[in-house]
Amino acid sequence: MAILSLDLGGTKLAAAIFTNQGITLWEKYLLLELKQGEHVGELVKNLVHEALLYKLDKGDKIEAIGVAVPGISFQNEGLVYAPNIPGWERYPLRAAIEEIAVNMPIYIESDRSCYIMGERWLGAAKDSENAIFMAVGTGIGAGILANGKLIRGSGDVAGAIGWMALNGPYDAKYNDCGCFETYASGAGIKKMVQQLLHEEIQYEGYFTDPKAIVNTQSLLDQYMLADIIATKVLNQAIRYWGMAVANLISIFNPDKIIFGGGVFGAAVTLLPAIKAEAQKWAQPISMGQVELCISQTGSKTGLFGAAYIAKNAINNIYF
Amino acid sequence: MAILSLDLGGTKLAAAIFTNQGITLWEKYLLLELKQGEHVGELVKNLVHEALLYKLDKGDKIEAIGVAVPGISFQNEGLVYAPNIPGWERYPLRAAIEEIAVNMPIYIESDRSCYIMGERWLGAAKDSENAIFMAVGTGIGAGILANGKLIRGSGDVAGAIGWMALNGPYDAKYNDCGCFETYASGAGIKKMVQQLLHEEIQYEGYFTDPKAIVNTQSLLDQYMLADIIATKVLNQAIRYWGMAVANLISIFNPDKIIFGGGVFGAAVTLLPAIKAEAQKWAQPISMGQVELCISQTGSKTGLFGAAYIAKNAINNIYF
Repeated sequence: MAILSLDLGGTKLAAAIFTNQGITLWEKYLLLELKQGEHVGELVKNLVHEALLYKLDKGDKIEAIGVAVPGISFQNEGLVYAPNIPGWERYPLRAAIEEIAVNMPIYIESDRSCYIMGERWLGAAKDSENAIFMAVGTGIGAGILANGKLIRGSGDVAGAIGWMALNGPYDAKYNDCGCFETYASGAGIKKMVQQLLHEEIQYEGYFTDPKAIVNTQSLLDQYMLADIIATKVLNQAIRYWGMAVANLISIFNPDKIIFGGGVFGAAVTLLPAIKAEAQKWAQPISMGQVELCISQTGSKTGLFGAAYIAKNAINNIYF
Repeated sequence: MAILSLDLGGTKLAAAIFTNQGITLWEKYLLLELKQGEHVGELVKNLVHEALLYKLDKGDKIEAIGVAVPGISFQNEGLVYAPNIPGWERYPLRAAIEEIAVNMPIYIESDRSCYIMGERWLGAAKDSENAIFMAVGTGIGAGILANGKLIRGSGDVAGAIGWMALNGPYDAKYNDCGCFETYASGAGIKKMVQQLLHEEIQYEGYFTDPKAIVNTQSLLDQYMLADIIATKVLNQAIRYWGMAVANLISIFNPDKIIFGGGVFGAAVTLLPAIKAEAQKWAQPISMGQVELCISQTGSKTGLFGAAYIAKNAINNIYF
C-alpha cells in the first residue's frame, strides 16, 4: 500500500508518496510563485497527475490521497478556506483533485491538524492520545489531539490559538490576527522590531542597518549579544508563548506539547525560558505531567500527517 | 431502569434516584457540616445505603451509580482529590461506595464534567457534540465536550480554566488559584471588593457598612446603582470572563458555551456584556458559530450529569 500526500502552504506545494511505514518513495516541491485561485488548483492537479504516473513496485498502488491545507478544511463540503491564497475563500479542492484521481479516497485537513498527526505517526507524539502541536510561523495555530481524536470543533475552525486573549484591555492592533499572534508569531515579531526601531531613538545596534536581516535567527543571534531590541522583542514573545502554553496545559492536561513551524526552528534554544514562564501560570498537577519538546519530523511534518490520516481512514480509523 | 446519582460539593451532598428519562423518583440533600476525610466518606456511604432501600416500582431497580465530585476523579485508581475536603487528597471513593453497593457499576466524574453532561442530557446542550460548561462559583472550571466525548486529559485534570493566564506579567497573587480565578471567581470577586475598600479611601457607599452582604446579587444591585466598587469589580470580571470565553471559542470552535455555578445564577444579566467582550477577541468565524447561554438544569445539573454518564456507561456508551 502507498499513500500520496500533499502539503500546500501559502508560498509552496510539496508532495510525496509514502509506504505504509512512512518511507518516502517519491517527492517533489514547487513554489506557488504568487499564483492565485484556480491557478493554484491547476498546480495541485498537475502534481497529483504526475505523482499518479510514478511506477510503484509490481502489485503495489496508491490507495488514498491526504492533503494538508494552510487554513480551514470544511469537511462536509470538501471546500478549503486558505487566507493566504487569494481566491480560496471556499475553494472546491476535493472536487478538483477528484477530476484527476477518479474514485480515489481523498482526505483534506488543516495543516495544523496534519502537524500533530505527523508527530503522532513518526515523531514526538508516537504513543500519545493527548498531545498538541503549536505551530509558530508567519501565523500561529495548534493541532490538538484529545482522547486520540483531532479537535476540529463544530465548524472545522478549532485550534485558532493565534487569537488567544492574553493581554487586556483590548487593543485595535489585535484586529487582524488576534492578540497572541500580534506579539509572538513570526510576522508579529518582525513588526515589533520595526515598531521598536521607531521608538528607541538612541538605539544604534544591528537592526538600524537597512540591510539587516530580520528573522528568528538574527534576533536570536542579537539576543545572545544583549541587543536591546532583540531582548525586548524576544522576552515579550517568550512571555506570550509561555502564557499560551500554560493555557493549553490547564485546559487539556496533555502529555506532550510540540513546538514547530518556521520560528521553531531556530527558537528551540528558548524552550527552557518558555517552560519557566509556563510553569508560573499553569495548573500545577498538569504542568508536572506535560513534556515540552520540538518537532521531530523535520520539514515533512505536514506531509506525514496528511498521509497518516489518509492511510488510517481507508482502514476505517478516523481521527 | 433507575440510576442513583450523587453530587458532592465542598459543603453539601445531594443524591437523587432518576428514571431512564430523568424523572426524579427520590432526592435528599445533606450538609457536610465541616466533616473531613473518612467522615465525609461515611456520609456518602450512609446516603447510598438509604437510597438503595428506596422501593422502586415492581420489576424496576437501580442499575448503576453516578457520582460528581468537587475536584479530580482519577479514573483508573477510583481515587478522588477534592481540595475543599480535608483528607481527600487521594480518597478511595469508589471502594467506599462498593462496600455498600456491592457489584453495582459506579462511575465517578469531576463536577465540571458532570455539569456539561447534565446539560447534554436535559439542558442547553441536548444536540451538541462540541459544548462547554463554564462553572463560576467559589472557583472556576470547565466541563468540555468535544467530538461528543469529555476532555479529561492524560491525567484526568483537564478543564482547569481557573488557571488561565489572561494578564501578564505574572503576579504572586495568582499563586494559589490561578490568574482567571483571582479576578473572576466568586471568591476572587469578594476579595477584590475588600481590596478596593482599602484603596478607595473616599468611598462611602454600600460596602462600607460592616453588615453589608458581599455576594453576586448585592454586587449586581450596586452595579445598577453605579456604586464605584461594584462597577470596578464587575467590569473587571466581565473583561476576564469575556477573554476566557473568547479563548475557549478560538481553541474549540464549540456551538454552545453554557454559564453556570453560583455566580451565574445572578450574573445572567451580564451575559450580553460578556459576549460583547468575547467578540472583540475571539476567532471571528468561530465567534459567529457559538451560542452563549445559561444553564437550563437548575440546581440538579451535577446530579443529572453523573446519572447520564452512569446510564450510558452500562449501555456501553462512554463519554
